[in-house]
Amino acid sequence: MKIHNFSAGPCILPQEVLQKAAESVVQFGDIGLSLIEISHRSAPFVEVMNNARSLVRSLLNVPEGYEILFLQGGASLGFYISAINVLKESGKAAYINTGTWSTKAIKEANLLGEIVEVASSKDKKFSYIPKDSEIPSGIDFLHYTSNNTISGTQFHEIPKTNAPLICDMSSDIFSKKVDVSKFDLIYAGAQKNMGPAGTTLYIVKKSLLGKTGRAIPSMLDLEVHIAKDSMFNTPPVFPIYVSMLTLEWLEKLGGVDAIEKINDAKAKLLYDEIDSNPNFRGLAAVEDRSKMNPTFELTDSSKKEAWDKLWNDNGISGISGHRSVGGYRASMYNAMPIESVQTLVDLMKKL
Amino acid sequence: MKIHNFSAGPCILPQEVLQKAAESVVQFGDIGLSLIEISHRSAPFVEVMNNARSLVRSLLNVPEGYEILFLQGGASLGFYISAINVLKESGKAAYINTGTWSTKAIKEANLLGEIVEVASSKDKKFSYIPKDSEIPSGIDFLHYTSNNTISGTQFHEIPKTNAPLICDMSSDIFSKKVDVSKFDLIYAGAQKNMGPAGTTLYIVKKSLLGKTGRAIPSMLDLEVHIAKDSMFNTPPVFPIYVSMLTLEWLEKLGGVDAIEKINDAKAKLLYDEIDSNPNFRGLAAVEDRSKMNPTFELTDSSKKEAWDKLWNDNGISGISGHRSVGGYRASMYNAMPIESVQTLVDLMKKL
Repeated sequence: MKIHNFSAGPCILPQEVLQKAAESVVQFGDIGLSLIEISHRSAPFVEVMNNARSLVRSLLNVPEGYEILFLQGGASLGFYISAINVLKESGKAAYINTGTWSTKAIKEANLLGEIVEVASSKDKKFSYIPKDSEIPSGIDFLHYTSNNTISGTQFHEIPKTNAPLICDMSSDIFSKKVDVSKFDLIYAGAQKNMGPAGTTLYIVKKSLLGKTGRAIPSMLDLEVHIAKDSMFNTPPVFPIYVSMLTLEWLEKLGGVDAIEKINDAKAKLLYDEIDSNPNFRGLAAVEDRSKMNPTFELTDSSKKEAWDKLWNDNGISGISGHRSVGGYRASMYNAMPIESVQTLVDLMKKL
Repeated sequence: MKIHNFSAGPCILPQEVLQKAAESVVQFGDIGLSLIEISHRSAPFVEVMNNARSLVRSLLNVPEGYEILFLQGGASLGFYISAINVLKESGKAAYINTGTWSTKAIKEANLLGEIVEVASSKDKKFSYIPKDSEIPSGIDFLHYTSNNTISGTQFHEIPKTNAPLICDMSSDIFSKKVDVSKFDLIYAGAQKNMGPAGTTLYIVKKSLLGKTGRAIPSMLDLEVHIAKDSMFNTPPVFPIYVSMLTLEWLEKLGGVDAIEKINDAKAKLLYDEIDSNPNFRGLAAVEDRSKMNPTFELTDSSKKEAWDKLWNDNGISGISGHRSVGGYRASMYNAMPIESVQTLVDLMKKL
C-alpha cells in the first residue's frame, strides 16, 4: 500500500532525494568511501557545503551583503542565537506571538533583555494572525514566526517595521517567493521543506551583526561561523548533503515560483473540500490559513473512529492534529505530491 | 582499489552499519517510509532513541544516577554547555591544556568565570600529557580532553582530583574500558568511534546539575534535555540512528573489552613499525601515545613525495598530519580493521 505522508516534520522528502542520499551512504561519488566517513575538510564535502549555500542564494535570490550558514540546533537553538546576536546589552526587542514556537522564542530572548510582546493571538488559541501590531520605537529587532505548524496559521504579508526584522521560517521557507531583502535574519530548521532533521539554515545581513556589546560563545556567534564559511567545527555532513539534494530537486522543478503554484493548488484542493464538506470544518481563520499545515476537525466527533479507520486503511499517515489542538492536520510540504492530497480529498467524501 | 580510510574524523564506520543506514534512508523497517521523513515522536524513532541510550549504558556500564543524552553541536558546543551547566556564578574551574581542543574549551569557559589552567604541554607543542598537576581547592570542576587528535597524545590514567571531573572524550570514547563512576560529565562528538557527524553524546551525573545559580538557555540546559528524555526538540534523527547501529555492531563484536584488545593490537603493530623503521619517527612522547591517532614523520623529509605517492597508489587515505603538526597521522578508530593497519605497515617497509 502506498503511504501518503502528511507528517508535520520531519516530513516527506522527494523520492529521488532519498535514493541519492542512500547511495551516498554506501558510496559517495567515485571516491570509494561513504559520504559519512570522510573528512568535512575534504574537497568532496567542501563542494557539498558550497553547493548547498549557493543553491539557497539562487533559489531565494539572496541579495549581496547576506551570508548563508548551515548550523545545528534547530529553531530551538535559533531562538537564542537570533537574540544573542542582535539584542544589545540592555536592549529591547519586539515579538509577535502566534503560538508555541513564538512563545518559546520569547522565553529564550527573555534571558537576554527586555522583550515586548507587541501582538498575540493567544486569546483565540492562536487560530489567527494578529495584524497592524503597534511596534514600539527603540527596539533592536522585531521577531515573528512565518508559519505556525500547530495551529495551522501563516503570515501572508510581511509585518511592517522600521526595525531589523528577524523571522523563524522553519516551516514555510522555500515553499513560496519571499523578498529576503525585507529581512535582516532568517533562520529555519531543515526538516520541513529543505531536508532531514539535523541542520539549521541561517540567512543573515552581515551589517546586522557585531553591534550587541556582548561576549557571544563561539558556536552561537554568527560572525564566527561566517568567518569560517560555515565550517567553524565539524558540520552535520549528512543533513547538509540531503538538504543540498532537496534544493537541487527544487531547482530542477522550476524553483520557488514553480513550487508556490503547486503548493497553492494543493492548499486550494484541500481547503475547498474542508469548506464544502459538512463533515469537516477548518480550525484557523480563513484569511490566515497555512498552506503548509491545514488544520481541521470533524463536525461530529463521535465519528472519529470511523474516519481514523478510513485514513489507516488507505495509507493516510501522520494526519493527527497536534495534541494541544486536536482534530486533524494534513501537512503538505514541498515534496508532497498533489496526488496524495487528491487521495485524501477523495477519502473525505467517503463517509 | 580498496581504500584504507585513516581519516581523523569524520572517519571510517563499519561496512555493515553503512549498508543498514543506507537501507533506512530508502525504507525504514516495514513502515513504508524513510527513516528521515517520519516524525521523531513516532514509535519507530522513539525506539531508536531509547535503544541508542540503552546501548551507551550497557557498553560503558554507566551507573545509576547518570543520564544519557544525544544532543547537537559537537564538542565545540560541548565546551560551553559543560561549563554553563556546572560552573557556578562567580565560580572557578580548572583545565588541563593538552592541545587545540582543550584550548578551545578554556576559551569558551572563560566567558563564564575564572578558569585556572592547572597544567599545559604547550611548551613542547602538546606532544606529551602533563602529569601530577596541582589541582587548586575550591574549584567547581576539573576538565580535560582524554585524547588529542592533532598531536596524537592520550591520557592513559584518569587525572586525580576531589572536584567533579568533566571530560571531552570525543575521540576515544568506546575505544577502551572506562570507569564512568570516576566522572561527573562526559561529552563526545559522535564522529569518531560512535557514528557520523551531527550528534553529541552527554553522560552526566544528575546530582551535578542545577547548582550554578545561572539562567541557562533551554537548548544548553542539560536538565531540560533530561526532563524530555533527550527529545526536547527535534533530534538529529539520522546521526542518532547510525550511532545506534554502530553501538549495536560494537556490542555484537564483544563490547568495549573486545575492541580494546583489537585497538591495542593495531596500535602495537603501527608503533612497533614506527620505532623500528629508520625512515620514520613518532611525534608524541612514547608513554603518552594515542592509540587512536598515531602521529609520525619522515626522518628524511626530502622523500615526502615518494612516500605520498606510495600511499596514494595503494589506497592509503586521510593520512596527512594536521596542518599545525605536519608529518603523518594514521587515525585508527574502532571500525578500522587491523588488515588496513597491516597494509600500511607493509608499505612503510617498501622504500
